[in-house]
Amino acid sequence: MLAFYFAPGTSSMAPHIALHETGAPFEARPLSFAINEQREAPYRAINPEGKVPALVIDGRPLTEVAAILFYLAKRFPEAALLPKDDLEAEAQVVSWMSFIAATVHPARRQGLEHAKTIYKLADERLGASEWAVGSYSIADIHLFRLYWRFFNSLKPEAGTFPNLDAHYARMMARPAVQKTIEIETKLGYHLP
Amino acid sequence: MLAFYFAPGTSSMAPHIALHETGAPFEARPLSFAINEQREAPYRAINPEGKVPALVIDGRPLTEVAAILFYLAKRFPEAALLPKDDLEAEAQVVSWMSFIAATVHPARRQGLEHAKTIYKLADERLGASEWAVGSYSIADIHLFRLYWRFFNSLKPEAGTFPNLDAHYARMMARPAVQKTIEIETKLGYHLP
Repeated sequence: MLAFYFAPGTSSMAPHIALHETGAPFEARPLSFAINEQREAPYRAINPEGKVPALVIDGRPLTEVAAILFYLAKRFPEAALLPKDDLEAEAQVVSWMSFIAATVHPARRQGLEHAKTIYKLADERLGASEWAVGSYSIADIHLFRLYWRFFNSLKPEAGTFPNLDAHYARMMARPAVQKTIEIETKLGYHLP
Repeated sequence: MLAFYFAPGTSSMAPHIALHETGAPFEARPLSFAINEQREAPYRAINPEGKVPALVIDGRPLTEVAAILFYLAKRFPEAALLPKDDLEAEAQVVSWMSFIAATVHPARRQGLEHAKTIYKLADERLGASEWAVGSYSIADIHLFRLYWRFFNSLKPEAGTFPNLDAHYARMMARPAVQKTIEIETKLGYHLP
């Protein structure tokens, strides 16, 4: 059994989308950041860091966005969320996710100008390609969630990141993305 | 053919250790941070971010520590650097590497007290286990490199992180670790 702990509008949106892509049954366990539920003892027993997301697999917690995305892609290969039988392409997906988590994600704390420099790098790395690595993958889901937040909170001028904008539009057309945003919007979130 | 771009004493030490663990032949391409070689055009053509490490596989660059570690572990399975036929354990290795890259690594910039809080979390997550996830893996290599730097630069009081200290000692006993440190020390590095 899969139980998914998340908070609407946060980083947990990426594995939330992946869960909907796989179509796998799961129990949704939303936490409220407004009352700091992720810092309370019950959730700390699942993730001592007090951070979402967590995927609890038959009682065993798995944390970190990249790890949950990796697990879902491998466990549900029919969803085709990772390149198949191509180690180098799979490693490129891991590379994108690491770049997103370690470089793009912290950039938001260092001001708009720094964030723009980093998103420029991401825009150039993506280039005119439809997806981050060959076909659609968990790297696209991870990238989308970061850009979605940047796009909707800091609101960069249109046209600044043409490749990310096109990628964003392609992602928004996916039913799993629409479904996730609809659910998280209903639960309510606030973008700073 | 594998060409490995690295700078002594930096994050690239982790894949450098992994390369020695596999015993695979590779061309070592050390860059000098002292003269900012990683920011110059020849290296920017390999990694536009201007960051080490990069592994060039038959002319195609792969960047990010976690991705290079993942690639090496999968390409050279005889080195047993990833749990075998156990998806959940493999995902836990990815989780550790993501936690290390996105939480432990940036902590150094936020001062000693914050770094101590984060290393305390890592110490508790490791617990009394010999290795991060079951048997020795790329997660241990990644964890070691961060703690090695923390231990040798900020010099936390002995006994503050008993589990990380024991892990450090186990890592220092490995020939691949000794060989890597010997090579990088000869090349020369400076820990701030």
